[in-house]
Amino acid sequence: MKTRERILVTSLELFNEFGEPNVTTIHIADEMDISPGNLYYHFRNKNEIIYELYQQFEKRMNEILVPPPEDRQITMEDHWLFVHLLFEHIWEYRFIYRNLPDLLASVDKLATHFNRILDKKERVNKAICEGLIANGTMIATVDEVNSLSQNITMTMTYWLNYENVRNKGKHTEDLGKGVYQVMSLLTPYLEPTHRAFMQDLSKKYL
Amino acid sequence: MKTRERILVTSLELFNEFGEPNVTTIHIADEMDISPGNLYYHFRNKNEIIYELYQQFEKRMNEILVPPPEDRQITMEDHWLFVHLLFEHIWEYRFIYRNLPDLLASVDKLATHFNRILDKKERVNKAICEGLIANGTMIATVDEVNSLSQNITMTMTYWLNYENVRNKGKHTEDLGKGVYQVMSLLTPYLEPTHRAFMQDLSKKYL
Repeated sequence: MKTRERILVTSLELFNEFGEPNVTTIHIADEMDISPGNLYYHFRNKNEIIYELYQQFEKRMNEILVPPPEDRQITMEDHWLFVHLLFEHIWEYRFIYRNLPDLLASVDKLATHFNRILDKKERVNKAICEGLIANGTMIATVDEVNSLSQNITMTMTYWLNYENVRNKGKHTEDLGKGVYQVMSLLTPYLEPTHRAFMQDLSKKYL
Repeated sequence: MKTRERILVTSLELFNEFGEPNVTTIHIADEMDISPGNLYYHFRNKNEIIYELYQQFEKRMNEILVPPPEDRQITMEDHWLFVHLLFEHIWEYRFIYRNLPDLLASVDKLATHFNRILDKKERVNKAICEGLIANGTMIATVDEVNSLSQNITMTMTYWLNYENVRNKGKHTEDLGKGVYQVMSLLTPYLEPTHRAFMQDLSKKYL
C-alpha cells in the first residue's frame, strides 16, 4: 500500500475508534511510524484527510442509494437488504455520524454534500414505500408515506449513534438490531399477510 | 443575578449557540466581561460548568418524565403535551444533544446519568402506549410496543439534532414538526376513530 493510502486507512481506523476530534495528525503519523513531515507531504492538514475519507464514503453511498427500478416487484426482502447494506456502510465510516454538527461545520461544503445523501435516503425510502403500496404489500396515505420516509431516514442516520450512547461508548453496536428497528417502522403499514417476514426477523434479532 | 448564576446562564447560551467544544472558559469570561480568575473562583474548569448545567437539565427532565397515573384515562392530547414539554426542554439544553458521545465521555458519570434518562423516556413511552391500548385507543402486540417505545425514545433524542443537520447548522429547528414526527410513529397503531387528532395536527404542522 502506498503511504497516501495508508494514511487514509489509519486515519479511518483511529477516527472510528477514538472519535475524529480526539485524533490529531501527530497521532496518525505516530501510529504509522512516519514523520509528521511525511504526512504533511500528502495531506496539508486533518481536514484534507476528512474530506478525502468523506468522498470515499459518499461514492459508495451513492451506489447503495439507488431507487429500485419501477418495473420490478419490491419485497420486504429487498428492503431488508437495502437497510442492511446501508448500516454496514455507515458502520465502516461511523466517525462521520458521531459528531455530525461539528464535522459538517469543520470542512467546507460537507454540510451540503451530506444533505444530498439525506435527500437521496429519503427518496429511496419513499420509492420503496410506493413500490410496496403498488403491489399491495403495504397500505398508507401520502401524508403517512412522507412522515414515514423521514422517520426511516432519521433512524437510519442516528441508530448506531444511539446504540453507542446506550452502550456508554463501548463499540458493541448491533447492526441487526438497527435493521430490525428501522423495518419495524414499516410493519404496522403492512398487509397482515405480509407480516410473517417481520415476525421471522424479530425471532432472529430480539 | 449572582456571578455564579450568570456564569451558568452565559455558558448555556454560548454552548447552545456555538456548540460546547467551540466555547472555552476564556470566551465565557470575555462575554461576561469578568476576569478568567473570577470565573475560576466559581468553577475550576469547563467540565464543572457542564456538570452543573447537566444537573439543572436532569432535575427538570425528571419532573417531565413521570409515567401517567394508572387510574387515569390516557388520551392523544396527553401524549402530545408530554412530547411537546420534552422537546421544549431539550431545546433549552440542546448543546447536550449536539455532540453526545464526546460530551458524555468528557465528564465522569454523565454517560450513566444520561442513560438513566433514556431508560425513563422509554418507560414513560411504554406506559403511554399501554394506557392507550388499555382504553382501546391503540392496538399493538407486546413486541410492537417494545420496538415502538425504543423508536419513539430515539426520535425524541435525535430529532432536533437531525433538523439542525438538515438546516446546515442554522438554528431554525421546528419543535412542532418534531412533535408531529414522534406522534406519527404511533398513528398506524391507533384505532381509526382516534386518528382525527393526528389529522388535525398534520394540518397545523405540515
